[in-house]
Amino acid sequence: MKINELDWEKMKGLLPVITQEVNTLEVLTLAYVNREALEKTFETGWAHYYRRSHGKVMKKGVTSGNVQRIVKVLTDCDNDSLVYLVEQTGPACHLGERTCFHKQVEA
Amino acid sequence: MKINELDWEKMKGLLPVITQEVNTLEVLTLAYVNREALEKTFETGWAHYYRRSHGKVMKKGVTSGNVQRIVKVLTDCDNDSLVYLVEQTGPACHLGERTCFHKQVEA
Repeated sequence: MKINELDWEKMKGLLPVITQEVNTLEVLTLAYVNREALEKTFETGWAHYYRRSHGKVMKKGVTSGNVQRIVKVLTDCDNDSLVYLVEQTGPACHLGERTCFHKQVEA
Repeated sequence: MKINELDWEKMKGLLPVITQEVNTLEVLTLAYVNREALEKTFETGWAHYYRRSHGKVMKKGVTSGNVQRIVKVLTDCDNDSLVYLVEQTGPACHLGERTCFHKQVEA
């Protein structure tokens, strides 16, 4: 499966990415990529995302140092979402937690 | 964290849900819930989603039998996405694969 075969058109250029720590298998974040972010991820070996709040492609951890080394990228049966398997340096969450998913929801 | 505290407004009523098998920690699917789907999930103990293609709330596996027993629900630091930790019965993917994320992407 190549970058060009993903369903960018249906998704209006932005695919959701589930990022998972390759050793612990913890889900770290849900973020987005455009084609440029995914290309930079493959070119550099470091996770890049399209940050909607900044309106641009950014390397994860570029300011915090909490970078993510890419091990593998997966897509689903519809080719419209991704999993990044990464080696996480430091906490993934800007609040200092290991993962952004650190709160339990109850009814 | 209660259902009402999630950021339904920002997300226009629909939150993305990453579903993860609680034993293997494999990521199975990326789907969506509205408030009704999340409430039914808690009420019944079985994963429900809002299926955008059907325009309604459906219990996962209602036709295939490949149901998901809910173990835990997590949210992220922004309260705008969820992780369902589930015990999966049978394959999660309608193609018969264990997970929908069964294809590797390459540059």
